This record gives sequence, structure tokens and C-alpha cells, in this order.
Amino acid sequence: MKQWLEEKLLQLNVTDEMDEENGFTRLSYTEEEKQAHEAFINVAKELNLDVTQDEAGNLWARWKGVQESAPAIAIGSHLDTVSAGGGYDGAAGVLTGLAAVKVLKDKGFQPEKNIDIVCFASEESARFGVSTVGSKATAGMIDKEELGRVVDADGITIKEAVESYGLSWNSIDQAEKSTEDIESFLELHIEQGTQIEDNKAEIGIVRGVACPVRLQVTVKGMANHTGTTPMNNRADAFVAAAPLVTYVEEQARELNEVQSTPIVATVSTVQLSPNVMNVIPGEVQLGIDIRSVDDELKRSLADQIRNYCETMNQSSRLDVHVHTLVDNDSVYLDSSIQEKLQDITETAGYRAHSMDSGAGHDVMNMAVRWPSGLIFIPCREGISHHPKEHASIEDLNKGTNVLAAYIESTAGEQG
Amino acid sequence: MKQWLEEKLLQLNVTDEMDEENGFTRLSYTEEEKQAHEAFINVAKELNLDVTQDEAGNLWARWKGVQESAPAIAIGSHLDTVSAGGGYDGAAGVLTGLAAVKVLKDKGFQPEKNIDIVCFASEESARFGVSTVGSKATAGMIDKEELGRVVDADGITIKEAVESYGLSWNSIDQAEKSTEDIESFLELHIEQGTQIEDNKAEIGIVRGVACPVRLQVTVKGMANHTGTTPMNNRADAFVAAAPLVTYVEEQARELNEVQSTPIVATVSTVQLSPNVMNVIPGEVQLGIDIRSVDDELKRSLADQIRNYCETMNQSSRLDVHVHTLVDNDSVYLDSSIQEKLQDITETAGYRAHSMDSGAGHDVMNMAVRWPSGLIFIPCREGISHHPKEHASIEDLNKGTNVLAAYIESTAGEQG
Repeated sequence: MKQWLEEKLLQLNVTDEMDEENGFTRLSYTEEEKQAHEAFINVAKELNLDVTQDEAGNLWARWKGVQESAPAIAIGSHLDTVSAGGGYDGAAGVLTGLAAVKVLKDKGFQPEKNIDIVCFASEESARFGVSTVGSKATAGMIDKEELGRVVDADGITIKEAVESYGLSWNSIDQAEKSTEDIESFLELHIEQGTQIEDNKAEIGIVRGVACPVRLQVTVKGMANHTGTTPMNNRADAFVAAAPLVTYVEEQARELNEVQSTPIVATVSTVQLSPNVMNVIPGEVQLGIDIRSVDDELKRSLADQIRNYCETMNQSSRLDVHVHTLVDNDSVYLDSSIQEKLQDITETAGYRAHSMDSGAGHDVMNMAVRWPSGLIFIPCREGISHHPKEHASIEDLNKGTNVLAAYIESTAGEQG
Repeated sequence: MKQWLEEKLLQLNVTDEMDEENGFTRLSYTEEEKQAHEAFINVAKELNLDVTQDEAGNLWARWKGVQESAPAIAIGSHLDTVSAGGGYDGAAGVLTGLAAVKVLKDKGFQPEKNIDIVCFASEESARFGVSTVGSKATAGMIDKEELGRVVDADGITIKEAVESYGLSWNSIDQAEKSTEDIESFLELHIEQGTQIEDNKAEIGIVRGVACPVRLQVTVKGMANHTGTTPMNNRADAFVAAAPLVTYVEEQARELNEVQSTPIVATVSTVQLSPNVMNVIPGEVQLGIDIRSVDDELKRSLADQIRNYCETMNQSSRLDVHVHTLVDNDSVYLDSSIQEKLQDITETAGYRAHSMDSGAGHDVMNMAVRWPSGLIFIPCREGISHHPKEHASIEDLNKGTNVLAAYIESTAGEQG
């Protein structure tokens, strides 16, 4: 099995070797994402699964059960990546889903219910700033009008990207599944942290997914010549904004000291205008990402940041504006699935760790409509969204075994 | 004359009105710069000047004197701009140079010596990060090999840009003038500050030009997922770099309190990598611009900044590197030309203010080879490199009169 995992890991990553120098770049609705999807289709066909592409570009590889009209046991993740990301974020879940089918087929298992291995489209927000587009479509959460206006760095709208991917934007919301189509959904993902390892465990069983609050802070000062504008006659937007980076970091650190639920906050993007050597920065835009499964905690930090910006605004030379890009409730996962996963890992002899997810995943959309679960496998040093992202074949194999056991216990064997 | 200035200001800016909303964007060696150069040729031809373009793209509009082989009195500036800059930085000097010729022709002046009104190419560093390319070529300061590698934001080399401008990169150094070609050079420029106004004067006579020290600071941390990396397990390059912005500002302010010679320092550029919402910044690059005519003072601030970065480097999780992009001596201008300008302004009844220039200008290259002078006219609120940059027609007219008087007193009238 390990050899099969190794081989198909490369195939799904459309590569001959895992490139830890350049990583993988398969942005949403690009030719690169499509190539990975084609690899998925090929592997699924080798396993005799029936693959269909829905209106959002998600792939559904079905192992037909005896009860062809019964709700399916769905398992999956995604194959798109961030820019220069790794080959495991998303790919691990798709790969182990397919591998679980192989394990069960190899041992002659015949499912009573349908089993769907899903490859969701466009999970990462790297290109359009919006994440999990494919699973949002599945869960009926697409607002075509609002979403269609979103653009990438080159000004291409997501609508245009979807169309040039070969889909019809107008039909994207028809990818929605009905409640009766799916019995439960399970995702496997790399942890993107080190909690499993820190707790000397092998598998993480996730209770809740922390959805971010995202703020965009715009500080307007006055652009002017760097050489001719005296220090006491400036309205340098970057000088005004820089302490906010420190403030966000310090506040998040302090909250972790006094709160039991972890919280993280990051100033992760900056745009300076005009950003040239001989002009004082006239405008700065900062992007801030705040996460905790404790929704009240993350919102109170967002408020603190808004207040801090308000005090900056008291300078007559500055104009500071805070825009809330995203503010969603955290998602709690199905407790009976968590219990089932506890049983499965115990039986398999894997030490399981119950934890929260700081990252968003396709499962957070699926969980709104269907009983859903999420398991984590460790990744080396917690590194992800980086060419050095790595999960071992051993851990992928353990994940495969958990998924296979889950299918076995839920899809029912033909009697 | 004022109507002529108003009309030709628009013509040289290739516009129907001075656009204070969008400003003007005529980057180095682009179609937009070329259009302004074509406008220059048209105005020069109206004045019956002979225009030639040299191998660097500089335009020389000659009013032939009686002594056709004698060194010329050269006067000029540039017509390229920063991105969304104003219509006076550079254009004011070219316009008033041409206007001075008109004033003298209108009154029947016949020069003994040749008079060259120069429009230098590619003065601004906005596109390639290198400034005053045209006047460097004139003064024989071009290192073709080193300069040819410089690229713009789209990865286009300056060599490619020069070639697609219609020039031959290989010949660019042939634009160099010999010492005997020019007797003296005088540039008029907007002040880009408020010292003239602050000193209740009308014309600035410049003693020296402060050349910048420019540093590029690279801070490498570790990119990782914003949602899954606990606050105490991060190497956030932006968090590390942000206090440097504050430090540079504070140190420059303090030095101005204790030093008589002004100094300015600005963190004017930032590049964050990967600069996406859900990834902790793994690398930050800051560009720092430091200026003072006191070379020792500016270099000691640069050293302070290097030391500060050295202390940042002591964190095992960071790798901080400081690269010196530019470190040139300040340029002192010809004292006899300054005296002549003092006499001229006194005679004309204009209050003159003796001052330094915090900005680099074409004159700083010309001064290395030929006796050179620089005069400033006020610009509204000291604003430049900005759509709201503005100089009044009255001040342009005064500048024209100073240039005309300078030509009259140096080019000699045919007896």
C-alpha cells in the first residue's frame, strides 16, 4: 500500500518528484488545477470508480453501493494549492480517500451504500481571496452576484476564470447537492501545526473549525518627495501603520496567556502606494487575519484593533479606515462522527488527539448541511503553504486505514 | 508671456488640462515619455531651434550663436515623471528654458555663443530604480554592463526598454559630450519643499545637492499557515521588520533636533512574501532612502540602521541582511554661477534664498563635468511626485526671466 500511496501522490501532484525547492502552484480554476483533476480522474478510473464533474468543477468518484439511490458516504478534500505551496495540503485527503477505496476493494469489501470520493475545486483563497468555492457550491452557499465580482491580482474575475476553465458561471449554483444525496462527509487533511506531535499522538480528531475574522485597514497619509519633505512636515502612511503590526502580534500573544482557547492574529498582507524609493508612502493597506474557535474571543480582538485604528485616526494628517472582509462563526463538527473516529483509532492502535482546527477546510461548508468529520495527520514541523510542506507515507497510510475503517463501519457490507 | 507659458505647459504635458486627479505618468523610456519629447520638438521648432536626439534619447534644441564651434550655454531638465506624478517636476525646467529663448528672441537678442535647451531622458527612478540616466550618459557616467541588467517591475531590462524606445543600447555611451562642448549648465526645477516660501523668498539658489544613501533590508523568517501556527511558534518577518520603520523615522527626527544640517530618512518601499491573507509573512524587503548634504551625517544614520538590523539578526529564527544600493557623495554647485544668479535676482527684484537640494536632479551629473547651477521656483505646499503638484504661472514666469537674464549675461550679444 505504501508504494501505491507514494506513486499516486506523485501522480496527483502531476510531478516526477516532490519538489521541496519550488513546491507546487495550482491556483484556483487554472490549467494547473485542471491537470491535477485529470490525474484524479485517471486514478479513480483505475479503481473502477464512476467520475462526474459538477457545475462548480468538483469531481465525484463513485463506488456504487447496492442501494443505488441511498445517500452516499462522501470523503474528500481538494487538489488546488497556494502559490509555491506543498503537495500535501488537500492532496493528502484526496489521495487517502482513493487509497481507502483501494484497501477495501483489495480485501473484497462490497458496500451497501454509495461511496463518493470528492475532489473539491478551488479551496485555497490564494488567487481570489475567497476560499472553498467548490464545497460552498456543494453546500448551496454561493451568491453568484457577489462572488462573480471578485478578481485576482491580474484583474480577472472569478466568473471569467470559471468560464475559461470550461464551466458555465451561470450554472455554478446547480452544483448544490440535496440533503438526501449525502449521509455524512469526512475529510482528512494535514494538520498544518504541531499539536498532534506535541501531544505524542498520531491522528488528530477535530472538534471545531475556527473561521477567521479578516480586516482590511487602509491608512491614508500624503505622498511626497523623500528628499525634500522635512521630517516634521510629513504624513507618512507607513510610519503610521507599522506599529499596528506590532500591536496585533502583542495583543494576540497576551490573550493566549490569559485565555484557555488559543487565538492567533497575523498582519499577513501589505500594499504600499506608490511604493517607490523616492516617494513617502501616501497610502498603506494591511490585511489582518484573526482566528479562534472562540468566536467571542476573536471578535473582541477585532474590536480592539478597530479601536486602535480609531486612535490613529485622531491625527488630522491621517485617514484610517477598517473594513471587515470576513466574519463567520466557527463550525463545530458532528460529535457522533468524532466518537466513531475515536473508536476506529483505538481499535487500530493509533493514539488520537482531540483538537480544534485553526485553518478553514472544505468540511466547514459540508458540516452546515451534513453530519461531518475532520481528521488530521501530522506534517513535518507543522510547515504548510510552503515548498517544504511534508507528510510521511507512514502517516498517509495510517490516515488511509482510518478512512477505510470509517467507510467499512458506515457504508455497510452487502450481507 | 504668461499665456505662452500656460499654453506650452499643457503642450509639453501632452494634455488639454492639468489633471490634479490622476496626474501624469510618463515613465522612463516609454511611449508616454516619447510623446512629451515629441511635444518638446514641436515647441522648439516653433522657436526655430535645431533639435537633435542623442544616443541616450536626450533632446538638444540649439539656438546657434555666431561662434558656431564655441562651447554652449546649456539649460534644461526632463519630461519623464513618476507614476501618477505632477506636470511640473522636470517640465518646469524644460518649459522655462524654451520660454527664455522666446523672451530673448522676442526682444531681438542675437547670441554670440550657442545656446542649448536640453530635455534629458529618463530622470526619474520610478521605473528602473535608477535615476538621471540621460544626464549620466551626457556626463559619461554610464556603465553599460551594470546598468543593462536593471529591470522594471515587469522584468523588462533597461536595455530592452531603450531598444524598444528606438535607440541602440550599444551606442548609449556615445551620448557623452566632451568638456569643450559645454561652457556651463543651468537647471530650473520646482523646489519640492517649502523653504523658499518659509523664508519669504521667490527664487531658491542651490548650493549643493544631497545624494541619497539607499539601503535594502531583507528579513527572512518562516512562512506558515496563519490559522494553525501558534503565536509562540512563529518567525513572522513582518512583525520583525515593522519596528524598523518606526526606528528610521525616530532617528531621523532626533538628528534634526541636534544637527544644523537637515537630514531626512524614509522607509519608502516594502515587498512582503508571499503577501496572502492566510500565510504568515516569510520574507520582507524594505527600501530605505536617507538624504543630507552632510555626507558624514547621512552615512552615520545608515550605520545606525545597519547596527539596528544586526541586533535583529541575533534572533535565531531570523536572517537579516542589509544591502547598500546607492551611496554617493553630495554634489556642490559652482559658486561663481551662484553669485551670478544672486546678481540677476537682485537686479530683477526677486528675493532669493540660498539653500540645499534634498532631491537629486540632472544637474548633479552635469556638475561633475561642467560648471553648473540650479535654481528653484516654489511649488504649492511643497507637494511633488503627486497629482496635486503645482507651480504658478507667475513663478514660472519669474524663473523664465532669471534664465533669460542668465543667457543674456553669459551667451554674449553679437556686437
